[in-house]
Formats: sequence, structure tokens, C-alpha cells
Amino acid sequence: MTVVLDSLQQGRQTVQPAIREALDRLDPTSRSIAYYHFGWTDLDGNPTSGGGKAIRPALALLSAEAAGAPPSVGLPGAVAVELVHNFSLLHDDLMDGDTERRHRPTVWSVRGAASAILTGDALLSLAQEVLLDGDGPCAIAAARLLAEATNELIRGQVLDVAFERRNGVGLDECLDMAAGKTGALLSASAAIGAVLAGAPRATIDGLAGFGADLGLAFQLVDDVLGIWGEPAVTGKPVYSDLRARKKSLPVTYSITHGGAIGRELAAWLAAGEPPDEAGIRHAAELVDQAGGRRWALDEAHRRMAAGRRKLEDAEVGERVREELLSLARFIVTREA
Amino acid sequence: MTVVLDSLQQGRQTVQPAIREALDRLDPTSRSIAYYHFGWTDLDGNPTSGGGKAIRPALALLSAEAAGAPPSVGLPGAVAVELVHNFSLLHDDLMDGDTERRHRPTVWSVRGAASAILTGDALLSLAQEVLLDGDGPCAIAAARLLAEATNELIRGQVLDVAFERRNGVGLDECLDMAAGKTGALLSASAAIGAVLAGAPRATIDGLAGFGADLGLAFQLVDDVLGIWGEPAVTGKPVYSDLRARKKSLPVTYSITHGGAIGRELAAWLAAGEPPDEAGIRHAAELVDQAGGRRWALDEAHRRMAAGRRKLEDAEVGERVREELLSLARFIVTREA
Repeated sequence: MTVVLDSLQQGRQTVQPAIREALDRLDPTSRSIAYYHFGWTDLDGNPTSGGGKAIRPALALLSAEAAGAPPSVGLPGAVAVELVHNFSLLHDDLMDGDTERRHRPTVWSVRGAASAILTGDALLSLAQEVLLDGDGPCAIAAARLLAEATNELIRGQVLDVAFERRNGVGLDECLDMAAGKTGALLSASAAIGAVLAGAPRATIDGLAGFGADLGLAFQLVDDVLGIWGEPAVTGKPVYSDLRARKKSLPVTYSITHGGAIGRELAAWLAAGEPPDEAGIRHAAELVDQAGGRRWALDEAHRRMAAGRRKLEDAEVGERVREELLSLARFIVTREA
Repeated sequence: MTVVLDSLQQGRQTVQPAIREALDRLDPTSRSIAYYHFGWTDLDGNPTSGGGKAIRPALALLSAEAAGAPPSVGLPGAVAVELVHNFSLLHDDLMDGDTERRHRPTVWSVRGAASAILTGDALLSLAQEVLLDGDGPCAIAAARLLAEATNELIRGQVLDVAFERRNGVGLDECLDMAAGKTGALLSASAAIGAVLAGAPRATIDGLAGFGADLGLAFQLVDDVLGIWGEPAVTGKPVYSDLRARKKSLPVTYSITHGGAIGRELAAWLAAGEPPDEAGIRHAAELVDQAGGRRWALDEAHRRMAAGRRKLEDAEVGERVREELLSLARFIVTREA
């Protein structure tokens, strides 16, 4: 675990100043909202300690190392993927109506929809600018990788919104949605450092494949935490995703593979009236009984194993591979 | 006028298929919403005739010609600027609560906020992808130009939102806001073809300067149409911007330069209760009496003259210069 925390902490320490430098290009309003969103200041602009896990930047720096380059080569990529991630959080929180993120009120809930939209837009555009500051074919390849990942991420979010509105979502569709929404950017994060380092195709593809698997594992664990996560740790209410009747991966598995229990769960999800506490608790039991929780955690481990094999095939050096795998283990064993 | 319509029509004819091709990369939902937004289909996906003026793509194609290249060299730029423009329309309509655009219901008003946000996001990301398909230093320079213009555009929109909420907005601030919101992307449109053609710095700067002036002229005329435009032509209600108590350029001029009449107008704008028809009509008269309408139209012509000088200094060939100036004349004499 120490190794993991090291690479995450190193990521934060190296990348945070670079993100701040990038944010200096924004207008003062967007910048101060971004600072609040990142957890660096309170609503009045006073410094606070906080911030996300910064998994994506850590991956991007390790990705450069995986290609034999110093981590600094991956730095523009690390900044860019974290900016794109936070663009998507700002817009998603608004679309999902989520009022809390990282134990604090979300931007739209305290500053209004326009602030969340515009600050998100600014971060997305800034991400490209950061990569395009670099010159030459590696910078353009990295910018292209990020633009493609962003389109995939948006495609995933479009599916997520659509699934909220319809019944009968299949498990494959749900996995495809997660591959877009979460897998694409983690895949790009794991590959972008190697792209910036001019690594051979096989290395880049191996890292991208590892990141995509990691992304699925991440989402599977996230969905389990969205139901059974400890509120004090996650900062979300108990059974949060069921409260919102979210068709997450464990729920979809239980519905499609859970026989009679699955049908009972499907009927509860499709009901019109607002769910009551007893109903929510019962729904969580149904997901569990139908095997959704077990499947999600097993599937997360299967994805991790697949990702590990891709790293091995790509002949990533042992030290970096171990750090990437520690990060992956941290992701599937985390509690928030 | 014929020349103008030719270059606009040529722009539409060349660029529309290329935009369609770019949109093919999007997920089907975002693509069909984009088709509706562009005016190509109705809500059920049936083809319709319609679409915007496509001023920005026409500029981008002429920009390549200004650098001595065939218009096709500017095509990726033409597609990209139109995508960024439409990203901003999708988000702005939502933030401003506008229910009509180009005589049709806006996307957010018929498909919901999430659709407008996500389709806008997708177009922004796609714009960068289109440019990054090209290789080499010109493509990266064009992508950088577009990312910078997008940040400026967002900065302008942030100011616009902020101005709505406060009184005492100065004319310089208002012009700065318009330079960001409208000037930046028109400037990039006028320069991006030359950038893609690898033109010398002086040509690029001259075209960018012309585009920035054109942008201000465009916004000044837009603001006049926003008050006195013919509803049947603009597709907006009479006195539309005053109805929304918008601190547009003519209004801000009248308040800051209109003495006692300006103070009466400022008091009306600051009032809390919803404006009634008589009040709105009276406010329009005040803007007129205080010289705001006259100033805006004169200033638009001054900006155009400044832009023309920049084109002359940049030694853009006569035929292309005349086409660019015809486009500029169309912009300041248009009725919608």
C-alpha cells in the first residue's frame, strides 16, 4: 500500500502546481470556481486542504516512465487528463443534480448552473491548450488521444443519461457505457505519458488496454461503493445510488441474471413513486441476493488480471509495472 | 451583395458535407441532436431546409485563399470554427433560458438541459479532433489558435453572465466582453485558413485583426437587432433584449454617455419588478434618445474601416480582400 500512496502523493505534488499554472490562463471567475471545485479553496477563496485522489495524473506520469522517459515528460498529459476529468465532474454533477462532491457542496448547487457549465467548458478547452503547448508529433498525438477519449467519455455519459430514462438495459450495454464513461479517460491517462515519450505502438497499446481494464474495475468498485459504501468515508448517503434508482453495473447484473429476485428488483426500480427507506434497504438486499455485489467485485478482479497481462505483454519494466499494479490494487480495494 | 451571398453559399455547400462527416464520429444521440440544432432535421429526424448563416466557415475558407492556398486547405478550420460556434450556442441558449433559435425551439427546451450540455461538449471536443486529423506544425498551430479562441469565448460568456447580475457596467468592460464572446472566434475564423496554409505571421495577424474588428461590428449590429430587429425576420420578439433587461452595447453606451436620459434608463434596468410593455417601449426610446443606437451603428462602421485597413496592411490579394469586405458589409447591413 505504501508504494501506491507514494505514487499518488508524488502525482499530486508534481501535478498540482502545474494544474495551478494552467488555471492561471483562465479568467478570474472561472479560475476561482475551479480552485473551489478542486478542493483548494473554500467559497470565499481561503485556502483549504483537500482535493481528489488524482489517480489519472499518477497514471500519466507512470506512463511516461513505462516508456523509459522521466515522469516530467508525462506532465502535460497528467495535467490535461485531470482537467478533462474535472470538466466531466462539473457537468455531470449538474446533470445528475448531485449536491455534494468530496464532502463539499457542488459548484452548480452554490454558484448556479451557468458557473458549472462555463467552468467545465473552460477546463475542457484548457486541457487541449496544455497539450498543444508542446510541439512536434508527440504533442499532436497526445492531443488527438485526449480528444478521442473525451468523445468516448461524452458518449458514455450520453448513454448513462439515456439509461436513466428507460427500462430493460442489458448488461453489455451497461458495460459499454462504463467503458466510455470511465474506461476511456483512464485508458488515455495510462497511455498519454508513453505517447508524449514517443514510445512504440505496442507499449502504448498495452498501457491503453491496461487503463481501459482498470477503468472498468474502477467503475465496478465505484458502483458497489455507491450502494454499500460507508457514508462517513464516501461522503454520500447510505444506498445513495439506489436512492436515485441508478441502473449501475451490480443492479443491472442482478436484474438480468437474478431470475425471480432480479424481476422483483426491476419492478421496484420501474415504480413511479419516490422510494421509501424500507424499500431502498430491501432493494439493496435484492441486489446482494441476486449476486450483483459478488459479481461486480469478482469482475473487477478479473478486469485487473486482464490488465496485468496486457502490461506484461507490453514489456513494461518491472518497477513501473509494480507501481501501476499497486495503483490498480488501491483502486479495487478503496473505500471511497 | 451577390458576391457576399456567393461566398456564404459556397461556404455552406463546401462545409456542410464536411461537418456531417465529422458528426458521424459522434454517438447517434448526440449526432441526431446536432442535426436538429444545425437545422438539418426536425425533431423526428426528417430532413428540413435551414441552418445558420455560416459566416465563420466562409471566413475560414477565404482565409486560406488570402494566404494563396486553395479554399480546401482551410476546410478543417472551417468545420472546426463552426463546431465551436455551435457548441457555444447550445450552452448559451440553456444558460440564457432562450427557447427559440433560428425560428425553432432550442435543444434544451425540447430535449432537456443534459442534451444541450452533452451535445455542446461533444461538438467542442470534436472541433479539436477535426483539426488534429491533420498532421504537422500547421495543424497544431491551428488547433492552438482554436483552443485559445475558445478560452476567450468562454471568458466573454463568463463576463456576460456576471454583467447580467450587476449594475454599473462600464462601456470598456462591455466592449471587452464582446471582444471575447464574439470577436475571438471571428478572429480565429478569419485567421485559421492562413494558419493551415502556413502563411507568414504578418498575414495571419492582419487577418486575425480584421476578424476581431468584424466580430465587434457583428456584435454591435446584433445588439441593435436585439432591440429594434423585425420579429418576423429575426425570429425573436420585438425589443427582445430589453425584455430580458440585457446590458447590451447600445444600452451600456446610453447609460454611460446619456446624461439624465441614461440615468433614467439605468434606473429602469435596475428595477426589480418584471417589465411591462409600455416600460419596454419607453426604454427603447430612451436608448435611442441617449444616442445608443446611433453610436452602435457608427461604431460598427468604424470597426469595419479599421478591419479594412488591417487587410490592406497585410497585403491580402485584391479579389480575396473584396470578398472578405463584402462579407463584412453583409454582416453590418443584415436584418437578422
